[in-house]
Amino acid sequence: MKNIESIKEKAKLVRKWCMVSTTEAGSGHPTSCLSIADVTTVLFDKYLKYDLSAPLNKYNDRFVLSKGHAAPLLYTLFGIAGAYPLESLRTLRKFGSQFEGHPVPKFKFTEAATGSLGQGLSVGAGLALIGKREKLPYKTYVVLGDGELAEGQVWEAANFASYHHLDNLIAILDINRLAQSGETMFGHHLKEYADRFKAFGFEVIEIDGHDLEEIDKALQKAHSNTNGKPVAIVAETIKGKGVSFLEDKEGWHGKPLNTDQLKTALKELGEVDDSLRFELKMTEKTEVTKNPLEQTFSKLKFDKNKEYATREVFGEVFTELGKSNLNLYGLDGDVKNSTYTLDFYKAYPERFVECFIAEQNMVSVAAGLSRIGKIPFVATFAAFFTRAADQIRMARVSESNIKFIGSHVGVSIGEDGPSQMGLEDIAFFGAEPDIIILQPSDAVSTSKLVPLMINHQGISYMRTLRPKTPIFYDESEVFKIGGSKTLRKSKKDGLTVAATGITVIEAITAAEELKKENINIRVVDCYSINPVDAATLKECVSETEKPIIITVEDHYEHGGFGDFVSSALAKENLEVVKLAVSKISSSGEKSQLLSAAQIDAAHIIKTVKKLLK
Amino acid sequence: MKNIESIKEKAKLVRKWCMVSTTEAGSGHPTSCLSIADVTTVLFDKYLKYDLSAPLNKYNDRFVLSKGHAAPLLYTLFGIAGAYPLESLRTLRKFGSQFEGHPVPKFKFTEAATGSLGQGLSVGAGLALIGKREKLPYKTYVVLGDGELAEGQVWEAANFASYHHLDNLIAILDINRLAQSGETMFGHHLKEYADRFKAFGFEVIEIDGHDLEEIDKALQKAHSNTNGKPVAIVAETIKGKGVSFLEDKEGWHGKPLNTDQLKTALKELGEVDDSLRFELKMTEKTEVTKNPLEQTFSKLKFDKNKEYATREVFGEVFTELGKSNLNLYGLDGDVKNSTYTLDFYKAYPERFVECFIAEQNMVSVAAGLSRIGKIPFVATFAAFFTRAADQIRMARVSESNIKFIGSHVGVSIGEDGPSQMGLEDIAFFGAEPDIIILQPSDAVSTSKLVPLMINHQGISYMRTLRPKTPIFYDESEVFKIGGSKTLRKSKKDGLTVAATGITVIEAITAAEELKKENINIRVVDCYSINPVDAATLKECVSETEKPIIITVEDHYEHGGFGDFVSSALAKENLEVVKLAVSKISSSGEKSQLLSAAQIDAAHIIKTVKKLLK
Repeated sequence: MKNIESIKEKAKLVRKWCMVSTTEAGSGHPTSCLSIADVTTVLFDKYLKYDLSAPLNKYNDRFVLSKGHAAPLLYTLFGIAGAYPLESLRTLRKFGSQFEGHPVPKFKFTEAATGSLGQGLSVGAGLALIGKREKLPYKTYVVLGDGELAEGQVWEAANFASYHHLDNLIAILDINRLAQSGETMFGHHLKEYADRFKAFGFEVIEIDGHDLEEIDKALQKAHSNTNGKPVAIVAETIKGKGVSFLEDKEGWHGKPLNTDQLKTALKELGEVDDSLRFELKMTEKTEVTKNPLEQTFSKLKFDKNKEYATREVFGEVFTELGKSNLNLYGLDGDVKNSTYTLDFYKAYPERFVECFIAEQNMVSVAAGLSRIGKIPFVATFAAFFTRAADQIRMARVSESNIKFIGSHVGVSIGEDGPSQMGLEDIAFFGAEPDIIILQPSDAVSTSKLVPLMINHQGISYMRTLRPKTPIFYDESEVFKIGGSKTLRKSKKDGLTVAATGITVIEAITAAEELKKENINIRVVDCYSINPVDAATLKECVSETEKPIIITVEDHYEHGGFGDFVSSALAKENLEVVKLAVSKISSSGEKSQLLSAAQIDAAHIIKTVKKLLK
Repeated sequence: MKNIESIKEKAKLVRKWCMVSTTEAGSGHPTSCLSIADVTTVLFDKYLKYDLSAPLNKYNDRFVLSKGHAAPLLYTLFGIAGAYPLESLRTLRKFGSQFEGHPVPKFKFTEAATGSLGQGLSVGAGLALIGKREKLPYKTYVVLGDGELAEGQVWEAANFASYHHLDNLIAILDINRLAQSGETMFGHHLKEYADRFKAFGFEVIEIDGHDLEEIDKALQKAHSNTNGKPVAIVAETIKGKGVSFLEDKEGWHGKPLNTDQLKTALKELGEVDDSLRFELKMTEKTEVTKNPLEQTFSKLKFDKNKEYATREVFGEVFTELGKSNLNLYGLDGDVKNSTYTLDFYKAYPERFVECFIAEQNMVSVAAGLSRIGKIPFVATFAAFFTRAADQIRMARVSESNIKFIGSHVGVSIGEDGPSQMGLEDIAFFGAEPDIIILQPSDAVSTSKLVPLMINHQGISYMRTLRPKTPIFYDESEVFKIGGSKTLRKSKKDGLTVAATGITVIEAITAAEELKKENINIRVVDCYSINPVDAATLKECVSETEKPIIITVEDHYEHGGFGDFVSSALAKENLEVVKLAVSKISSSGEKSQLLSAAQIDAAHIIKTVKKLLK
């Protein structure tokens, strides 16, 4: 290794700023930075190809810090690469700084928000997958801590990476022995990690993570790997390496040095040259993925006399729009024949990603795809998005542009029983700020809403139904995010029933039955759950005999559609009566379960009559 | 093998009823039952020790069906064991039947509700752990499908089982090649699975899953295993085995036979003797775990002049109550020094379970512990419960008795930033039916509420705070689930501010500031978020000048505390004004972040003034 002395000096500079910035902040994880400082210094100085002026240049190598608490290291590395003055690192963790406690998109060089552990390898796998599929020359490096290797998602990602032959993916494992509250499961027994990654199909290289020659050889080998296997560099490291009183000591996780300790530490580091810079390799070309939307609406036609399952129609529209919109990707967790992404898979296998039954990895892979300009559609049973709730939460922090399609919502799925029913999805997606939630009730509205999801930048979520429903709309109808459709209206409506999805047909049935008894109600299809159409509902309240809105939804009561309505109309003088699922459901026929949950036409009728008495 | 012919006949009987029941139901997964029918027949006939009259007998072996869609097999096995007439299996999947599409607790022999895949090995590990720790002789058998082995949780459980030396745990892997929508990741390449489980510390036995002699030898070996390693029996099987037109065929997942197909299939099976029964081994003794609660309140005293972090007080109370309440268990995901379960660990290591950074497994292990009478406390950062949302959902379906403690809630945690902030926890826990949600604001209320959680049967959730708060309550105060405390009250209150957790001190500060300007407000501490104290809040509405309640919470707006208040008071004529977090937060000081989120005293004051204008 030619420039070993120069790299040593740079590693000292890295260490200095990881400590200075955290001491200045009064919190943070300096020792977790120090353990992997040597490996990342060699990586940045000798291998990383990166155009600092264009983080989204599609020829850039990708660097994912999965162990997000080592954020000061990430900031220091890009600082030494020349992205900003090192002195600015003193704003670490301060309000308004781009250098947050854990990386967020305001720091433009981060590939994803991290800090919830065990997600980075999946993000990296998503990035590497595109490199493979589009034959781009970049490498994806992911730095993982040893504590986070206990997260199952890491092993989902490992299977995914070897299955898809991502030999352009390099996982760097920082085996520093110490986790937050004690020793990790395997301490410094590197073999435990090596054996696991080998069994999961990785090329494994074990090294001393502080021997610059070994590091260089490993990175060289990883860099030139083309054997179809992803690489894991298992690095034995020392937490706090470089400062004797921190090295391999318990009690130093997530703890900055105080001013005196910092002085002692810097003294031990010796003279450090603040003017040193990494010599980043430049990328060959500059180009950012851009696939402008070609087709932004669906041309599908439906037979008015037929019934359709909205999940099936989604599949058709997705496939239709995928034809000319080349940035659309489909991600599946082995339910493509139920969510109806199967057609997309058949039509565009090169833009379909089979993730098997591993929802967490699937969502974080999508975050990787989104980062580099793709529009991933992630589809599974709505119930199983709870499996990836943390990944969705982090995708939101990452400002990802992901479209989630949750099929089999509610008790209306019938015989399969409660484990398969999505009944908390509106609560969860709805809690995260600014996630659009749509739920079409028929084929036409589905075909109109899918394009709106694509056109909207950010996360959106659509609920689709297992059973078939009749057609309510003419193909000329216009739908919009935040809109609704009034399906029954008279000059003498007693109150309003606001329904969504499967309950729309129940509400219409109720209205027709009530009409026979000369009771008129207004029925609104709130296909846009968030934002909900407050203006229309306000109008209903002012126009109906009683200022009452009955919300009917196939979702649990708390955090559902009804709460969006209550919230949107909080200033109005009205009563919102929520009909929603309030108990654990069971197996049974759709009609039995809708009735047991008290969200069917009969219960709407009963409630209306009671309220209009 | 002596009785091989008799076992063959019994396997035919198993196959018959898996097919008959699903055909009768018109839905279900017969082929997924047939692949593992031979292994489970041998298990039930020759090995399983079980007292049918007492499923909770602590000497019973434990049988967990992780691949819950093979429920008809589970029901058939216990039927042939003599638990109920086989004819009753014809009610499969019908409304009201104990035989649901996927197992639920109404079927009393199920160890846990399954159907969301990849959770059973964790439940089994929890059951096996207690067997080990209490030196009970039972074995735990878990049947897993090959599709679900892609779920990361399985590998969390595998690490957990080998780390804790659970050699009484036997995983039976049904490698039938075909998943729902195509071939699994590894098809019939058994070595892929065997290598992985070996690397994860298992004793691995590969067998032909339809060779009764091989099955018997494997079960015999597993049964007598005492080498400290959990066992994985990797069984090569044929989906649909026993019926030629179903065997190894795509397109038969989750599909029952029609009546004609059933006839053909039964003909192929040949004569089946419906009177055959398994000869279940009986357990030595009958005894159900019972540890009556000895201490049901806390005797801790606090210094009124000091401030305390509720997370720390929780740790103290938990440790105090653990002393005489021997069914209390602590489960940790490597944050015990942050959630303060560390003291419990030090005091009762035999009832502490370190799960490392693997929240999904942790929750399902707790479901296992709960099944056999323990009261597990699962504590981590509130944000990281999103990682286990699906497992919490299924624990709820399982009717588990788990206590969840979520620390570091809200933006008030400060510098660590959004990845560590629990801001959607009320939405998620609150959506699931009947989960109690508590949030103490000071030391005294914490010490009062933890015992209430223990005394309540079912799932409860407590939010604890990172920062310290002053003492608001006298130790003589009485707290109850569904209660609240009115902290500021006058005869001329303009409106009510309902706060919870960290916002209580903000509301009190606001009230004191406003008082200086002769504006009186009522301040209620809603320490019980679900159920919320509707009676007290109603009273407030009727007694204050304006019928307005301002809810203030360190949680996202949708699905939070404010929505519980709106819902509880839906029939009242009032306005609920929600102050809650509406954007992704950042790093910063607590006060800066509370201010940026507009939930601090200043914003309460501003809102009050605006509303009382």
